[in-house]
Amino acid sequence: MKIYGDSISGNCLKVKWVADSLGLSYDWIETDVLTAQTRTPGYLAMNPAGQVPLLIRDDGRALAQSNAIILHLAEGSTLIPTDAYDRAKMLEWMFWEQYSHEPYVAVARFQVRYLGKPVSELEPRLVERGKAALGRLEQGLADSPFLVGETLSLADVALVAYTRVAHEGGFELSGYPRVTAWIGRVEKALKIAA
Amino acid sequence: MKIYGDSISGNCLKVKWVADSLGLSYDWIETDVLTAQTRTPGYLAMNPAGQVPLLIRDDGRALAQSNAIILHLAEGSTLIPTDAYDRAKMLEWMFWEQYSHEPYVAVARFQVRYLGKPVSELEPRLVERGKAALGRLEQGLADSPFLVGETLSLADVALVAYTRVAHEGGFELSGYPRVTAWIGRVEKALKIAA
Repeated sequence: MKIYGDSISGNCLKVKWVADSLGLSYDWIETDVLTAQTRTPGYLAMNPAGQVPLLIRDDGRALAQSNAIILHLAEGSTLIPTDAYDRAKMLEWMFWEQYSHEPYVAVARFQVRYLGKPVSELEPRLVERGKAALGRLEQGLADSPFLVGETLSLADVALVAYTRVAHEGGFELSGYPRVTAWIGRVEKALKIAA
Repeated sequence: MKIYGDSISGNCLKVKWVADSLGLSYDWIETDVLTAQTRTPGYLAMNPAGQVPLLIRDDGRALAQSNAIILHLAEGSTLIPTDAYDRAKMLEWMFWEQYSHEPYVAVARFQVRYLGKPVSELEPRLVERGKAALGRLEQGLADSPFLVGETLSLADVALVAYTRVAHEGGFELSGYPRVTAWIGRVEKALKIAA
């Protein structure tokens, strides 16, 4: 299989981490968002949404959306809880990530680190909602080492992707001790260099 | 089970439609977003994210996020394709809905219909991205009557929720003939009054 991804994108790294964690072999095709390599006619023919990551399966069929891709790759693995309620909670976190975390934490980081905007000039709404998302994560880790119980699941993969680089967008993680400890646990479980 | 929901919210109606379609019995607890009934201490104790819909299962455990709830309720039903790739495509549409459709189409509609903002005063970005989402849907329906193949799936439920009321946010659906025909098919399949 092939994975089209940009290594600066947490959404793309999720797919790489899951594939690596499961021992799947793949070709990684580095695709630069900043120079609009996702907007060429050839790329748009593969993914009309013009986004990375994109999975091309061995049968040639394409799949987009980071969380849909990792759910597909990890089917039947320990990264997806077997208990129906735990599985639903994992999905709850994954949908929350795309709606209430990524649009603030990842967007602030992109503007600061890759577009060169000073943290002080970020839209206040981005900062406020990013902090709210980090606070919600801190609360979600009150009773367990991972977001859904005792073991790593795709919820952790999805949420660690941009949380571990939140400081690059000006978010100070020292105020979230459980989140900080959890990042270390997830990086260790995924064998990602800190 | 109990469903906390606001009947003006497409995200909440998704849950109602799926429960009705599957013949599940439930208590619907009308929860008014406009008067902040989702922000009371009692509600936040059930759902720290302060959002509807919220499912309370018969065992008392809670589940949030509309798309996570409908995936949970519909497990094992015909609303979820049995083929692994089709199931992944369904999830691709559902994550896309929350990231690239709802934040524009639903937000514009909320501002116009419930906050009384004139369509002409909507943020241009909302209008532009809402139109892009509707265009992407039109394209996605080029080859099949439903978003994933020949039969209704949760992808259609998730995406019809705000598409069918997009005109309330000033989006003219007549330019999207496949989308218009699809709305009718989905409403019929779900037995929703048009």
